[in-house]
Amino acid sequence: MNPQIALIMGSYSDFNKLESAMAILKEFGLAYEVRVMSAHRTPDVVSAWAKGAEAAGIKVIIAAAGGAAHLPGVIAAYTTLPVIGVPIPLEGLGGLDSLLSMSQMPAGIPVATMSAGAGGPENGALMAISILATSDATLMEMLKTYRRRMADKVVERDSTLQWKIRTKEQENRI
Amino acid sequence: MNPQIALIMGSYSDFNKLESAMAILKEFGLAYEVRVMSAHRTPDVVSAWAKGAEAAGIKVIIAAAGGAAHLPGVIAAYTTLPVIGVPIPLEGLGGLDSLLSMSQMPAGIPVATMSAGAGGPENGALMAISILATSDATLMEMLKTYRRRMADKVVERDSTLQWKIRTKEQENRI
Amino acid sequence: MNPQIALIMGSYSDFNKLESAMAILKEFGLAYEVRVMSAHRTPDVVSAWAKGAEAAGIKVIIAAAGGAAHLPGVIAAYTTLPVIGVPIPLEGLGGLDSLLSMSQMPAGIPVATMSAGAGGPENGALMAISILATSDATLMEMLKTYRRRMADKVVERDSTLQWKIRTKEQENRI
Amino acid sequence: MNPQIALIMGSYSDFNKLESAMAILKEFGLAYEVRVMSAHRTPDVVSAWAKGAEAAGIKVIIAAAGGAAHLPGVIAAYTTLPVIGVPIPLEGLGGLDSLLSMSQMPAGIPVATMSAGAGGPENGALMAISILATSDATLMEMLKTYRRRMADKVVERDSTLQWKIRTKEQENRI
Amino acid sequence: MNPQIALIMGSYSDFNKLESAMAILKEFGLAYEVRVMSAHRTPDVVSAWAKGAEAAGIKVIIAAAGGAAHLPGVIAAYTTLPVIGVPIPLEGLGGLDSLLSMSQMPAGIPVATMSAGAGGPENGALMAISILATSDATLMEMLKTYRRRMADKVVERDSTLQWKIRTKEQENRI
Amino acid sequence: MNPQIALIMGSYSDFNKLESAMAILKEFGLAYEVRVMSAHRTPDVVSAWAKGAEAAGIKVIIAAAGGAAHLPGVIAAYTTLPVIGVPIPLEGLGGLDSLLSMSQMPAGIPVATMSAGAGGPENGALMAISILATSDATLMEMLKTYRRRMADKVVERDSTLQWKIRTKEQENRI
Amino acid sequence: MNPQIALIMGSYSDFNKLESAMAILKEFGLAYEVRVMSAHRTPDVVSAWAKGAEAAGIKVIIAAAGGAAHLPGVIAAYTTLPVIGVPIPLEGLGGLDSLLSMSQMPAGIPVATMSAGAGGPENGALMAISILATSDATLMEMLKTYRRRMADKVVERDSTLQWKIRTKEQENRI
Amino acid sequence: MNPQIALIMGSYSDFNKLESAMAILKEFGLAYEVRVMSAHRTPDVVSAWAKGAEAAGIKVIIAAAGGAAHLPGVIAAYTTLPVIGVPIPLEGLGGLDSLLSMSQMPAGIPVATMSAGAGGPENGALMAISILATSDATLMEMLKTYRRRMADKVVERDSTLQWKIRTKEQENRI
Repeated sequence: MNPQIALIMGSYSDFNKLESAMAILKEFGLAYEVRVMSAHRTPDVVSAWAKGAEAAGIKVIIAAAGGAAHLPGVIAAYTTLPVIGVPIPLEGLGGLDSLLSMSQMPAGIPVATMSAGAGGPENGALMAISILATSDATLMEMLKTYRRRMADKVVERDSTLQWKIRTKEQENRI
Repeated sequence: MNPQIALIMGSYSDFNKLESAMAILKEFGLAYEVRVMSAHRTPDVVSAWAKGAEAAGIKVIIAAAGGAAHLPGVIAAYTTLPVIGVPIPLEGLGGLDSLLSMSQMPAGIPVATMSAGAGGPENGALMAISILATSDATLMEMLKTYRRRMADKVVERDSTLQWKIRTKEQENRI
Repeated sequence: MNPQIALIMGSYSDFNKLESAMAILKEFGLAYEVRVMSAHRTPDVVSAWAKGAEAAGIKVIIAAAGGAAHLPGVIAAYTTLPVIGVPIPLEGLGGLDSLLSMSQMPAGIPVATMSAGAGGPENGALMAISILATSDATLMEMLKTYRRRMADKVVERDSTLQWKIRTKEQENRI
Repeated sequence: MNPQIALIMGSYSDFNKLESAMAILKEFGLAYEVRVMSAHRTPDVVSAWAKGAEAAGIKVIIAAAGGAAHLPGVIAAYTTLPVIGVPIPLEGLGGLDSLLSMSQMPAGIPVATMSAGAGGPENGALMAISILATSDATLMEMLKTYRRRMADKVVERDSTLQWKIRTKEQENRI
Repeated sequence: MNPQIALIMGSYSDFNKLESAMAILKEFGLAYEVRVMSAHRTPDVVSAWAKGAEAAGIKVIIAAAGGAAHLPGVIAAYTTLPVIGVPIPLEGLGGLDSLLSMSQMPAGIPVATMSAGAGGPENGALMAISILATSDATLMEMLKTYRRRMADKVVERDSTLQWKIRTKEQENRI
Repeated sequence: MNPQIALIMGSYSDFNKLESAMAILKEFGLAYEVRVMSAHRTPDVVSAWAKGAEAAGIKVIIAAAGGAAHLPGVIAAYTTLPVIGVPIPLEGLGGLDSLLSMSQMPAGIPVATMSAGAGGPENGALMAISILATSDATLMEMLKTYRRRMADKVVERDSTLQWKIRTKEQENRI
Repeated sequence: MNPQIALIMGSYSDFNKLESAMAILKEFGLAYEVRVMSAHRTPDVVSAWAKGAEAAGIKVIIAAAGGAAHLPGVIAAYTTLPVIGVPIPLEGLGGLDSLLSMSQMPAGIPVATMSAGAGGPENGALMAISILATSDATLMEMLKTYRRRMADKVVERDSTLQWKIRTKEQENRI
Repeated sequence: MNPQIALIMGSYSDFNKLESAMAILKEFGLAYEVRVMSAHRTPDVVSAWAKGAEAAGIKVIIAAAGGAAHLPGVIAAYTTLPVIGVPIPLEGLGGLDSLLSMSQMPAGIPVATMSAGAGGPENGALMAISILATSDATLMEMLKTYRRRMADKVVERDSTLQWKIRTKEQENRI
């Protein structure tokens, strides 16, 4: 089956930061197209791809970029598919530039902006999945399982913490 | 038919700023549930509603709030439906607080953050529509028509501008 | 005796940054409950805990979180106990996101926000102690002693500095 | 009975912005001392007052100021009573200056910082009340009632909104 | 003669803010093309225009936009002509979003960013003129004259101020 | 031939950060004058140089500086040649200070501001080249070739990525 | 006697905002030179004036400007007299640009930066006076008197406030 | 002779960052008092010292602090001597907090704020010297010499750079 999710990065150097997003998509058994395209260096590639994305079977697009980070906004201009923006912080302004550049889109062409920094790539993947899940009950169930596992992990760490603290206290008493 | 879109506002005072969002939903012929609920003043109402939203037929949630603006994040914690956040700027910090509070969600619980200020509410509605359109071809067509009309308006204004300028120049020549 | 202070962290990864807070509580001989709970990953755990905190004997809550950092605000929504927020800076925005997300709470549900970064965890503990001290004269005396020791340390360092400088000057003269 | 709460403002011009705080204190039947004192123009008044506050029966201090807004930090330096800071935004930087100046206190001398702008003064009062309520069950009950009334108002507005929308829809159908 | 300068605005609503730019171009006797085009609403118009601009005789492009303000960056992606960006501040973030979105362009595709707010539109025009003047000695002379007049006006206002102050002093003496 | 481009740095410590700019100028076969001059430490050198730049054959000036970063603005005050500003981020404020100081020039004296951080120096060089290219068809062709090569590299990396991913998938299947 | 204080403004439009500064200088009986000069529009006037300031008897310089606000830094480059910078906030960025541009001067050429917004102009005058007062005992005495009067006013307003509140309470009792 | 300059640091940990300031004072042959005092931990030490500073022969005060950084403002409240503030950036907010807290002083109590980060400590020392120099011709001459040496160093580095580049070019030719 053709992938329904596309993960576009503005620069190959963002690849490592996006591996957590790809890991989540794989964990959900979802095929995805992953591409390097630059809104500014290869604008024709971007516009051609974005115009053809829907026909190619893509349902939701995740676009990650740093600095001026126009990529998701430019893609959104060429398609009515939902576009998710993942700001990649570069040194200096801490991603504030990318965050503002993605979120502050004009009326008509929304970009679903994720966190600049920690959690942004993962959430890009999860938002894409939850969008597909609006018409895919199995996926929605998988999302719930994922959430439960995440919750369990927090609860587990809480237990570990309790145990660790009690042990420490007992040691101190001896 | 039960509405598939919910528009939640953190405070009744945000109502006026969200009328443009509601107008778009109406224009697309989409029923929507509109609610006032506060993540901090009525947290149990929010959690109960969010937990039941999917069962009630809701497919996508738009949540608007100002200041600390936890509303979309809190809703997202209780549902795997896609949640769109619309930051409502209050006097002072220009919406930067709400924008950061919505976008900077931790890995696992994404909020699709829209523009703080101009365009945010409209884009909240349009992002919700594009999400539904991933499984509704008619809606996707309507989105395309909407985009074309938007584009036509820009082209039209461009023409008006050209005409205005030429007229002015001719007057100056006489 | 049951602890009167609870220290809640949004993620286990914040543990190290909060050890200075725990050290202060111990120094004051105060029992405390320390928990890992996430406003977004385990919202039901948070709300259940927060609703029961007062009955469990908790008198003041310290909640630390990074990024969107909704934790203290979400806890405050479920209890009338005083809630102290400690923003944990993540890479990128330097904690500005967490600081705004905690401080900018809407009228009705305050969060007592501490410093983002240096001093925040310690001050979370000390603010909790000073709150308990409003009805505990012994604790208030201990706080005063703590302050005096802190002051003494500054004075001592000032003396060390004077001595160091004078020594250096004498060496230069020889 | 002597007031247990003090509300200190750095400038008389902040008075109007603090009336909502005073209204809440009155609503709770709490006496309060209200003073104009400047950390920079009348530092000796501030230090003398702060040193004597505890002996005078004050249990919690709310200090509001704009600009550099050192007032709560300076008061906190002279007392171990809990000090709540309310940043008053001035034109220009939107209160970011006051927010940072209050929240970023060094380890040892915390200031419980409230929202810069909307909600800050009310929350200053409510935080003070919740602090007193840690040793005053009646007050804690009153806080809960206050919260319930606040929640009821949100629910009521939600109902009004539903009613308004249904009426509008019916009118549109006729 | 065909115009060598193009002034592109992202929205017709920016027209008034750009009149000062057009006035300067007129003052220098320079023809200019003025267009309304949106990087997001009419991306194909923008790319087609930008690709054809050089062939049409355009030598330098001024692009003004607010919010995410991708317009100059998107134009720059399609042409090697120099592109000047004029950030138009919208309510809320004071133009910081547009300023960062324009200036933070990736290596390879520069945008010459002007001031967000006062002076931005005028300077867009003057930067365009100084670029043309690098190969047009007459224009360079005109720029120098413009500068001298500007300087003269400052000197004149300084004189007026001196006179005003002296007059006031003499009145005070009488 | 005398160089037409000058690259001025406010401090010798910026040299390393500007090597990418010089590399681009060399790649285009362009001679350039490179100088260390400080707007504040050697203002007379700056003003004398700036006044004489045009007569010396300079056509466009690139000025890089950090902190208050007045250098490009001060140079622009003494010449009508186009001045390009490259903000060099120093530790702490991430270059926001330099970016604002360069971009926010008053009406009359524009500075073409580049990115603070990644891409800024390269874009300074490329903007200078595109300015010269407005009257130099060969240079304009070279710019287009440069762009094509840049685009090719992105396309190539995209291919590498596709290949890498397919290989990985095949390995996983075995 | 020649004035020892100079008050330089970058634009005549800043005049009104500086009247409070001039009023203070007059109140202290200090002659002052007031000038309109632009670091960018009349750089030669600025440098000539700054170079000659000391010889003309000026001892301290106050320079006010908005936007990029290079004026005090540029003056400081030409004189070793102390230069005080007063940032004048323009619409949009709230004076943050001017504040950073003045304060972030490189090692060697300090500018004594005052508040952006409320208090800045007055404090520019007072800082100048306190500098002169380091060698003028009468002036130092006058500064102390000024401070006392300022303190008295705060105390007086505090009394008014007490009286107002008591009156209100008595009215409420009747 | 008693020192006329005092250098106060809010924390001993700032010592290393202030050594450049002390080196400059030594270079000018100026005695200085250096102290560790905390506005919040030892407020009485600060107020006592500040009140007595003038009588002790101090003429100008340099106060360095990080975070909320109230120290210079608090000192300024107790003396009419000129107070220079040096913001020490801590991890996280890059010194923006300290910069705003120092610069945004209310009308009446100015603090001469230096750069947050690079150059701040050196400029604190130089501003102090230039203040003393207003009544000390020898010192003013020394400042001029210092400036000339600083300028010479820039010119020298410029020469080195020229030489380096020419050498490199010649090597390339061989």
